[in-house]
Amino acid sequence: MANALAASGVTLVGGKEWPGGDDGFRAHDPRSGEETGPVFYTADARAVSAAISHAQAAFARAGGSAPIDALLAVADLLDDHATQIVAQSAVETGLTRERLAGEVARTSGQLRFMAELARRGERLDATIDRADAAAGRPELRRVGMPIGPVAVFGSSNFPIAFSVLGGDTASALAAGCPVLVKAHESHPATSELCGRLMVRALEDCGYDQGWFALLQGRSRALGQGLAGAPQIRAVAFTGSLQGGRALFDAANRRPDPIPVYAEMGSSNPVFVTAAAAKRRGGRIADALAASLTGSAGQLCTKPNLIVLADGPDGEELERVLAAAFAAQPVQPLLNRQVRDGFLASMRAASALEDVVALSAQAGEAGGTRNLALTSSSTSEAEGSFVVGGTLLGASLEALLFHETLRAEHFGPGGVVVRCREEDFTKVAERLEGSLTATIHLETEEALTWSALVALLASKAGRVIVNGVPTGVAVVRAMHHGGPYPATTSARDTSVGAAAIDRFLRPVCFQDVPDALLPPALRDGNPLGIWRRVDGELTGPASAV
Amino acid sequence: MANALAASGVTLVGGKEWPGGDDGFRAHDPRSGEETGPVFYTADARAVSAAISHAQAAFARAGGSAPIDALLAVADLLDDHATQIVAQSAVETGLTRERLAGEVARTSGQLRFMAELARRGERLDATIDRADAAAGRPELRRVGMPIGPVAVFGSSNFPIAFSVLGGDTASALAAGCPVLVKAHESHPATSELCGRLMVRALEDCGYDQGWFALLQGRSRALGQGLAGAPQIRAVAFTGSLQGGRALFDAANRRPDPIPVYAEMGSSNPVFVTAAAAKRRGGRIADALAASLTGSAGQLCTKPNLIVLADGPDGEELERVLAAAFAAQPVQPLLNRQVRDGFLASMRAASALEDVVALSAQAGEAGGTRNLALTSSSTSEAEGSFVVGGTLLGASLEALLFHETLRAEHFGPGGVVVRCREEDFTKVAERLEGSLTATIHLETEEALTWSALVALLASKAGRVIVNGVPTGVAVVRAMHHGGPYPATTSARDTSVGAAAIDRFLRPVCFQDVPDALLPPALRDGNPLGIWRRVDGELTGPASAV
Repeated sequence: MANALAASGVTLVGGKEWPGGDDGFRAHDPRSGEETGPVFYTADARAVSAAISHAQAAFARAGGSAPIDALLAVADLLDDHATQIVAQSAVETGLTRERLAGEVARTSGQLRFMAELARRGERLDATIDRADAAAGRPELRRVGMPIGPVAVFGSSNFPIAFSVLGGDTASALAAGCPVLVKAHESHPATSELCGRLMVRALEDCGYDQGWFALLQGRSRALGQGLAGAPQIRAVAFTGSLQGGRALFDAANRRPDPIPVYAEMGSSNPVFVTAAAAKRRGGRIADALAASLTGSAGQLCTKPNLIVLADGPDGEELERVLAAAFAAQPVQPLLNRQVRDGFLASMRAASALEDVVALSAQAGEAGGTRNLALTSSSTSEAEGSFVVGGTLLGASLEALLFHETLRAEHFGPGGVVVRCREEDFTKVAERLEGSLTATIHLETEEALTWSALVALLASKAGRVIVNGVPTGVAVVRAMHHGGPYPATTSARDTSVGAAAIDRFLRPVCFQDVPDALLPPALRDGNPLGIWRRVDGELTGPASAV
Repeated sequence: MANALAASGVTLVGGKEWPGGDDGFRAHDPRSGEETGPVFYTADARAVSAAISHAQAAFARAGGSAPIDALLAVADLLDDHATQIVAQSAVETGLTRERLAGEVARTSGQLRFMAELARRGERLDATIDRADAAAGRPELRRVGMPIGPVAVFGSSNFPIAFSVLGGDTASALAAGCPVLVKAHESHPATSELCGRLMVRALEDCGYDQGWFALLQGRSRALGQGLAGAPQIRAVAFTGSLQGGRALFDAANRRPDPIPVYAEMGSSNPVFVTAAAAKRRGGRIADALAASLTGSAGQLCTKPNLIVLADGPDGEELERVLAAAFAAQPVQPLLNRQVRDGFLASMRAASALEDVVALSAQAGEAGGTRNLALTSSSTSEAEGSFVVGGTLLGASLEALLFHETLRAEHFGPGGVVVRCREEDFTKVAERLEGSLTATIHLETEEALTWSALVALLASKAGRVIVNGVPTGVAVVRAMHHGGPYPATTSARDTSVGAAAIDRFLRPVCFQDVPDALLPPALRDGNPLGIWRRVDGELTGPASAV
């Protein structure tokens, strides 16, 4: 049975409401553009300092263990309060309730998944090399240990799954690191509700409240302060290239640099071969239209660039895709900044030579004006954050020449290029790092595309054949990352089991008595985990 | 049978001698300070550019596979030519032949170890999650793939094991990444000999010569150029804090930042409890004296700070240690810069209030003048790089106050502090990140030291009980790294199996046909490696 849960405009430190702060602000309802909900205040330096002190104390007391039960408890609380949280976040984000309900389920599942990984010690890489007297070698044992307090910056586009209780928080806690969340200023009330659930879960399970803090705010100083705080050992961020890079630079300017795991913009190119377009162009067009416009195109893995094999089937695919775009209703974007950014980026792209608008979009009044390309749209001045989808067509030459056409357009927009299949490689070579890269091909031609697939694998964190990149499964084999500018750490992922690795640091113990070893390394294997002993994997029942 | 091998003063690019270059220089014999060997030239921008082109071509042709046979072949060649390489490096480094022979064996063993890890796919983290139609989830497969060309900066203090054919090169090649080595300017001829062996190994095994290049040089511009080259995907470095940080900063200023894995300075504190000093103070003192002065104290893991429990046993331990220091012969340091740095750092420390010299050291002429503390030493002006060992004693207050006393003194020197056992924690808390931390204790008191051991584990990459930190075994459980300033990436190690991880980037494949997958992920498991399938580890004989 869910207890009552309400947002009152607070920052949460040490399990308590933190009074006051700097710079009051309110959320906006994207459908109207009007303010909504209580006034929130940007957490001040004292709040940050107190949260860090609590986190350090909790970390020291935990002795390397993770608050696994709290992960499970908050997952249940989240499910119990799904209706309230969905309703609150719908008001603050303009996203549909269906989409947000999916996000709640994803988030609670992810919390349970991380708890299970922590329980199994799966990412600890526990390794034991016994002493070798003949070689004069001591006994060495190595295991991943939590690094300490972590700052998590919630995203704008996933108010639940990449925010307060999202993947970064879940994986940091599963590693055993206390978390200070900087809530995104677009959905502070949703963040508060989620934060209150975490406070309750920690309390219910008897954990220290220092494991978690929720810092509200919209100032750049707050972010920079967190990235620069001596006690913060890593930063996780989901958002824009500009925001991620600013944190990355701040963290690297420290006397003692710390890692910043920023997941940022991404082009997510999609290639469609002539054979695929011929066999199933219509289905591909429908899938792409949904992928480009779902959640108003505000997904990190949304395709921004569609490269079609030229010819009648490619032309037909383009036509169907454009028609599907035109048939989409207008949608609100997350906030004014996202809206303005989307409109600016689509207008800049559409103004280039050899670029044409492929879809005209229904406006608010039901007309066919293309909102995104009309500079004096009524939606832009003061009103709602609603925009229409925009599909542009560009020539190969324009694409290769203009970076704008290869960039991310965060919102329901994209660029289509038709070119010879022989030129697919030329396009791929020109692309920067990306979270994903997709190719639609037919089975019988698969081997002829092996070089392109290898090239795409060198540019992206995930390569998809005959699917869409939107939809990021929370499983062990997921990699949600990629070369810069997709992320600031190409080795790392913010989704899936390996997300935990970011918050662990291996420590080697040489000839350390059993009683002083972390449990994962003790002779008797008290955690019952897989370990590598003298080079071979040994199971949960194996002792040394 | 070893072929003739001689250094002629060259940079090696594409398997060939690269003519000319900028800025001629020669090595120095540290025992005399005089120039020795042929003139070498700093590789110019054209050489770097050519080496990168070769590396990119080799990488593209390899399709993700590692040159495993070349690692094995060069290991054999190295052993075959051990006598020549030891003789050459003794002249250029002043290190003993015994020590250098050990380095050759360590290096060839490390090359074979890395080849074996590559063959077993041990660090690939190959993971398969099969499709789940009910959950609407595609098939996802994830594996570590090589990142591309890597720049390796050889160290001054390990002319063989952390240089041209050292751990960074071996682990990068084992990952499947071509390597451009920037040889250390103190031992260019040793580097050339090792480089020639790699060229021969690649040739013998039929590999592309683009896998390896050896760039000689002593200019800062060369290093910055490598760290800034767009095609270089990572940097590995062993050396000073100043040098490592400069590369780190350069790499982070790039439009697309790349990781710099720099292993730098380290304090390597050692604590000795009262019980341990009482039971075996003499043996501990002897072990410490050898650890502080072996290889003239020029090891990354050399203890710089010895913290003794005060009392008669601690005093006696200090006395024996000082006597052992005084009995050590003088030794040459690696080069003029190392010598000057050592002398300056010991003088700065000894000039502080509450700091005294505990050992007077035999000088060149057989006197007892302490060379390191005598500002007008004859050795310093133009002559040899020979110095004597220097042991300082400091008060607890001085140690806590002066950073100089907690820093690395690269050379045969250290600082001893006696204090109450209750103050060990205070000292540990004040320390920065370190490669190692050691405590000598007695078994029966072990549990009383658990908090200190946990604190040391939070500061160091390796925690040692009742041993010395010098001696870094090349095994899976080794971690040779630690929090800044020990390294620029606390998660990573430059020794042991996990060294490979630095050069792999996971890529996820979604619904990709078997024939287009990397071999590690194919249904039939053609590489015969351990993989995690649907959450469970499966062995080398398991297919999907």
